[in-house]
Amino acid sequence: MFDHTQCVVRSSLLEKLGRTLPVKGRHRKTVIVHANSNVRRNPNIAKLQAGYLFPEINRIKMKHLEENPDAKIISLGIGDTTEPIPQPITKAMAAAAENLGTLDGYAQYGGYGAEQGQTLLREKLAERFYAEVNIQASDIFVSDGSKCDISRLQMMFGSNRRVAVQDPSYPAYVDSSVMIGNTEMYDHASKQYGKIVYLACSSENDFFPNLGLAKDAELIFFCSPNNPTGAAATRDQLIELVRHAKETGSIIIYDAAYAIYISNPNCPKTIFEIPGADECCIETCSFSKYAGFTGLRLGWTVVPDKLKFADGSLVKNDWNRLMCTSFNGASNIAQAGGMACLSDEGMNAMSELVSFYKENATILKNTFEEMGYAVYGGTDAPYVWVSFDGRDSWEVFTEVLTKCDIVVTPGSGFGPAGDGFIRCSAFGHRENILEAAQRLKESFSRS
Amino acid sequence: MFDHTQCVVRSSLLEKLGRTLPVKGRHRKTVIVHANSNVRRNPNIAKLQAGYLFPEINRIKMKHLEENPDAKIISLGIGDTTEPIPQPITKAMAAAAENLGTLDGYAQYGGYGAEQGQTLLREKLAERFYAEVNIQASDIFVSDGSKCDISRLQMMFGSNRRVAVQDPSYPAYVDSSVMIGNTEMYDHASKQYGKIVYLACSSENDFFPNLGLAKDAELIFFCSPNNPTGAAATRDQLIELVRHAKETGSIIIYDAAYAIYISNPNCPKTIFEIPGADECCIETCSFSKYAGFTGLRLGWTVVPDKLKFADGSLVKNDWNRLMCTSFNGASNIAQAGGMACLSDEGMNAMSELVSFYKENATILKNTFEEMGYAVYGGTDAPYVWVSFDGRDSWEVFTEVLTKCDIVVTPGSGFGPAGDGFIRCSAFGHRENILEAAQRLKESFSRS
Repeated sequence: MFDHTQCVVRSSLLEKLGRTLPVKGRHRKTVIVHANSNVRRNPNIAKLQAGYLFPEINRIKMKHLEENPDAKIISLGIGDTTEPIPQPITKAMAAAAENLGTLDGYAQYGGYGAEQGQTLLREKLAERFYAEVNIQASDIFVSDGSKCDISRLQMMFGSNRRVAVQDPSYPAYVDSSVMIGNTEMYDHASKQYGKIVYLACSSENDFFPNLGLAKDAELIFFCSPNNPTGAAATRDQLIELVRHAKETGSIIIYDAAYAIYISNPNCPKTIFEIPGADECCIETCSFSKYAGFTGLRLGWTVVPDKLKFADGSLVKNDWNRLMCTSFNGASNIAQAGGMACLSDEGMNAMSELVSFYKENATILKNTFEEMGYAVYGGTDAPYVWVSFDGRDSWEVFTEVLTKCDIVVTPGSGFGPAGDGFIRCSAFGHRENILEAAQRLKESFSRS
Repeated sequence: MFDHTQCVVRSSLLEKLGRTLPVKGRHRKTVIVHANSNVRRNPNIAKLQAGYLFPEINRIKMKHLEENPDAKIISLGIGDTTEPIPQPITKAMAAAAENLGTLDGYAQYGGYGAEQGQTLLREKLAERFYAEVNIQASDIFVSDGSKCDISRLQMMFGSNRRVAVQDPSYPAYVDSSVMIGNTEMYDHASKQYGKIVYLACSSENDFFPNLGLAKDAELIFFCSPNNPTGAAATRDQLIELVRHAKETGSIIIYDAAYAIYISNPNCPKTIFEIPGADECCIETCSFSKYAGFTGLRLGWTVVPDKLKFADGSLVKNDWNRLMCTSFNGASNIAQAGGMACLSDEGMNAMSELVSFYKENATILKNTFEEMGYAVYGGTDAPYVWVSFDGRDSWEVFTEVLTKCDIVVTPGSGFGPAGDGFIRCSAFGHRENILEAAQRLKESFSRS
């Protein structure tokens, strides 16, 4: 700690560190008042490069709007839902809100809820999404979304873990790994943080990485259908993934946020369809892209009973302890919305919504293909991944914004292997998707 | 990492660690399949004693109910609001929910919101609670509650910090400090975690600690009105607190979750009333106890522009980066509720609600005083802190539960200096508070 007595006599240092002020008391004396705190910045957070991807893109978009106030911007950028929430679901939430204004309603749903989520919602999630696999309601922890759970998972596992990620991948995996202290410094040459294992996924390996590179990893983040590439892993690929985890003793954090977009019967909708996955996998999922809940904040994480740390203790127990200490349950009205999503009517409504966005994806995919680009994804995912043959993806991003007033996401924002690509999100009103397709054709056609 | 080749030949170890299975491939070979992962348990989480306090108490309550199915339990335990949310607020939330079912409504509020909260809500919070002090809307970060923000603050500051807490205090401060790696092991003799500085607060020091003990602390958690003692710090005490922070260069994490319960004009409702606090304090607050939002999840944290790390960088920038990476905004319907709370009608409704709970507190305080106990708090806070003259507080807790079917909170659950006390929460229906008072008088009167 700082030695104050020394400072009083060393005026140059004093000036540098703070200013003096008289203090009340019997013996009036001069003490330091710090202009800055003495608290050092967290060195792990200091490692982070630039801002988090999507706020950064939003900043650039706002700047473009400022300079071009008449621009009619279309966003194919952040994967943000645009269609209204189906009314059976909004009506259920409205009823839940009204209900909190009554004595009985408040008694039932008003106070602190269980940190793990409402029992009925956990049961319904188990019934709707895990009926065919070995997952129980008690393995499901309701939360305010996958992004939030990813950071809480980092907090549960703690620092100095060896982490592997798909490259490209959703930036929260890497950024949260940096923040918790699982990486070394950023290397500007490789565009990678030290110590993280980047598992390149490209058309050359069918977007399934060489897992041999991850043999020392303790935690592997794996997202299917993948954000941003739109690739959905096949059953055989996931069997290989689970076998790898079982052989190396690693734990897979499997992000299934887009599982509902899978049409291919050969691609599992949950990792727990794979035998043994309940001994090596955690799965996160979310209502965000299922029912337009991006702003409502409702997701879940599955931590199976059989998943154990090296010492044999249950991962689930530590997850429960962390959720009870660092979280206080998802908003009760959002949970009422979740229940409505899982009714027969809600399931049908979600299915229609997802079909609508998938049609958008088809339009975008076809557009780029007709324009002469190599395009991936867009079939089992709401993302279309377009190759610009190795061009700097921020440069492409800027060109698309400048020429077409369209916001996309630069591929390199998802990791170095994403450079040369842009991600187009299929979340948008139909007329905007069609208009975007038209604008892109006018400015970027190759054929 | 685990050496597999060794394991194949050492069958006893093999048996202990996993089982073998044949693997497909050209050269069929035997590999280990781990029954447990190789991922070691986070040693910091392993330090935590028992479960988080309130779920633990709930567990004991449920057990009591199982054994006494006819018991009419009254909870004065966890500070959980019981009165309906005022209808102007629920109606605003119902309208917000319905609105998400329309194209325009969804466009305005439906998708991802700003991670920092809706601009209008931040502005309204600044206007209602910080108009007289040097805090702007841009310093206010809306969240899903103080408990969640406390863990995120720990994540921002990172591990190996020297932390000081009031003793007794809200258990999330200590538990989250343990989890992030700011403590050594728990010592069963002192009932303290190593390295944390416990600042005893008792009637002997007017519930204001000897800050000299915290001279090496980097982070000081300070809650006023205090949970559990109900003590609200005076202006002079807070001037001393801020002066201490400025002199030592520490940062105060000031929990003002109960500020609305302050009646005493000599007790500030925000730490930012104290000159210089904006250079050394973060303040967390919440709608939970203001408007019955415990289950809705809405709070805020103030990180002033002038608060700097030792290197001169802004704490606010790192907080913003963390919130963007680990959080995705509070639920939009809850934020609509927050806006309604801050309307003139909502402010009046909150004021009535708070007055009601304060009357409950008066009833409980008077009851125990009439019964011959030394009682603290209950005047500027919804908690009544009752001395049982050094008796083991879990023993008192059990006796109160067994004799009266009343759940209270054992003082030692808030830290070792809380032993000998119980905390009674004033959140309850009036008839239950009166009934509880009656039952307590029958079994615990001293006079």
